[in-house]
Amino acid sequence: MRKPRLMAPGPAPVPEEVLLEMAKPVIHSRDPRTKQGIKEAVEGLQEILKTKSDVAILAATGTGAMEAAAIHAVPPGKKALVLNAGWFGLRWLKICQAHGIEAETIDFEWGQPVDPDRVSQALKGRDDIAVVMGTLSETSTGTGHPIEAIGKVVAETDALFAVDGISGVGAMECRADDWKIDFLCIGSQKALMLPPGLAFVTVSPKAWAVIDSFEPKAFYFGLKAARKKLADWDTPYTPAHTLIFGLNKSLSMIKAEGIERVWARHKTMSEACQAGIKALGLELFSARPAEGLTAFYVPEGLKDSDVRKKLDDRFGITIVGGQDKVKGKILRMGHMGYNDEVDVVGALAALEMVLAELGHEFEPGAGVTAAQRVLIGQGSPVGAS
Amino acid sequence: MRKPRLMAPGPAPVPEEVLLEMAKPVIHSRDPRTKQGIKEAVEGLQEILKTKSDVAILAATGTGAMEAAAIHAVPPGKKALVLNAGWFGLRWLKICQAHGIEAETIDFEWGQPVDPDRVSQALKGRDDIAVVMGTLSETSTGTGHPIEAIGKVVAETDALFAVDGISGVGAMECRADDWKIDFLCIGSQKALMLPPGLAFVTVSPKAWAVIDSFEPKAFYFGLKAARKKLADWDTPYTPAHTLIFGLNKSLSMIKAEGIERVWARHKTMSEACQAGIKALGLELFSARPAEGLTAFYVPEGLKDSDVRKKLDDRFGITIVGGQDKVKGKILRMGHMGYNDEVDVVGALAALEMVLAELGHEFEPGAGVTAAQRVLIGQGSPVGAS
Repeated sequence: MRKPRLMAPGPAPVPEEVLLEMAKPVIHSRDPRTKQGIKEAVEGLQEILKTKSDVAILAATGTGAMEAAAIHAVPPGKKALVLNAGWFGLRWLKICQAHGIEAETIDFEWGQPVDPDRVSQALKGRDDIAVVMGTLSETSTGTGHPIEAIGKVVAETDALFAVDGISGVGAMECRADDWKIDFLCIGSQKALMLPPGLAFVTVSPKAWAVIDSFEPKAFYFGLKAARKKLADWDTPYTPAHTLIFGLNKSLSMIKAEGIERVWARHKTMSEACQAGIKALGLELFSARPAEGLTAFYVPEGLKDSDVRKKLDDRFGITIVGGQDKVKGKILRMGHMGYNDEVDVVGALAALEMVLAELGHEFEPGAGVTAAQRVLIGQGSPVGAS
Repeated sequence: MRKPRLMAPGPAPVPEEVLLEMAKPVIHSRDPRTKQGIKEAVEGLQEILKTKSDVAILAATGTGAMEAAAIHAVPPGKKALVLNAGWFGLRWLKICQAHGIEAETIDFEWGQPVDPDRVSQALKGRDDIAVVMGTLSETSTGTGHPIEAIGKVVAETDALFAVDGISGVGAMECRADDWKIDFLCIGSQKALMLPPGLAFVTVSPKAWAVIDSFEPKAFYFGLKAARKKLADWDTPYTPAHTLIFGLNKSLSMIKAEGIERVWARHKTMSEACQAGIKALGLELFSARPAEGLTAFYVPEGLKDSDVRKKLDDRFGITIVGGQDKVKGKILRMGHMGYNDEVDVVGALAALEMVLAELGHEFEPGAGVTAAQRVLIGQGSPVGAS
């Protein structure tokens, strides 16, 4: 028997209830039940994102939401400032370049968090910067960036703050309004517990004022058209409505648990995972770990692909390696969405067995025990809301 | 009991096998099985589209595929020529305008087919036209346009031929290579028997030569990046892989039936539906009906919404009304994808009962009988391949 255990930093596992919701007979996309579904989705997202902003629902993956934000954030003659601390920070830059949007970067070493002071310095006297583009959870390095502190800095200027929340939202605390996020970009396939195919972008009143000041070159990702249709709980083009119905099921699960408890669960899973990894004599990659995944260096003398292959072959566990400049150097274990504490302990146990078989030396059980020590006394009874 | 019968011109019904395929546990998007799925999808699409062109798979709806084609088809200084004969022909123009692509139109009355001679005249001596944008099945008017003849005209010039095949592909004959289509744009939620969320665009060698001559302003819909990744059966950004697995299931059903038989089934369903509608004393809207839907005038003295509401309330049947300038004037019944001859007869029978109850005068049974006369002796045994 192969029992699949998806512990990648997205796509993440999807609950059976959500899968079955989407397996119901397909209805028409302009059916009143679709409008009701869109309304429920928007209001549910506003609740868990802690925002009163509009939320546009796009039939796309998270990168589409980032593209929508980028196109609408920078009027002609203005520039974007990209906080580049990993592969997905860099994606902001690439999106800008592809669309002829002038952009400059503040670069940080991979694995290091963005320093809000450097953002503050970079913005001084720069009224040509229309938007600062950041990342809540940099999936490539497993780093959680200090979005609240950066948001405070950006909010003191006229610049907008666009945040890639794709692997972060639902997996770590994020309060869009309190943290002064003008565009929060989200994909469905991470902690929102859905397959890929839906993207969301919040648009704050400050962002709308900018958008309304020029004609963004957008059609499919046009936010003005989305706003117009949202007023009637509709979308400008065919909505991916089966995914929206699935979203409403997963949102109901998140709301039953309570978003604060969901954040706390991820924080605990992440601390348990970090403790386990360190107890195996391994080194974390990030100086400020994200809470939906844990990145760590490949043990000396081992190949990352051997570890991944053995985890997969023997235990059905999917974790991923590094991207781009850290390819082959790090491993990344996801613990987001429909993963719980027992999944983390199980994955650590499997990792121990694999490492032992591959000749890495450590005290067997040390990782599991360290994780358990973190978990004991934490969390809420299963199903409590 | 309410047994839902989705007879809209898309979204169209999705077979249970396809829904259940997508309800399987979610795997990682970079899993070898995902690559295998992408390979199978591309090759399957090439087979049913009758093309050797590359096929890019986008996490989007059909409009995204049109946007991808438009952005890549028109180098700076060149123009698009839009064949505008309905709401979706007009969409090409709107996409161009939103992206600052210069475009002009040849306008046809709604319900009339595009006249290839007028296209030929319009192209004479016009080497500034980079692309002609047409529509296989104009969903808003229920018209099938003579794409083969238009393709012949365009192929004699340097212009590319971009075709919106969203509600046409799989519901009527379409041979991308023989008909000289350079970009064929497709959505998943019509005759391909999937939920919305996947889009496809074919790119011919003639189109690649144009694309490689300039830097299209595209990221999410970037076809150069898609080509590079397709070489390794991958996508530039997260693929909507659960939908791709569903697609492979629906493609296997289409291939088992045989695409030529699928086309023939739609042609027969469409002829049966037209015969039934006319036998009820109703008038077809289109001078050259498409084969995946039938558009007809609302019977005099009746309201389209009453007909639709009664069909839905009493029999669970969803058909749709008119869009834009024919709103309230026409009704459109879809018969595409996972609809068969019995569904068409059943829908006509229900329509008869509804019209009788609403006071429209006709010979009860006339529509059903007329449809049966078309169907008798047609088609293949169920399940034959």
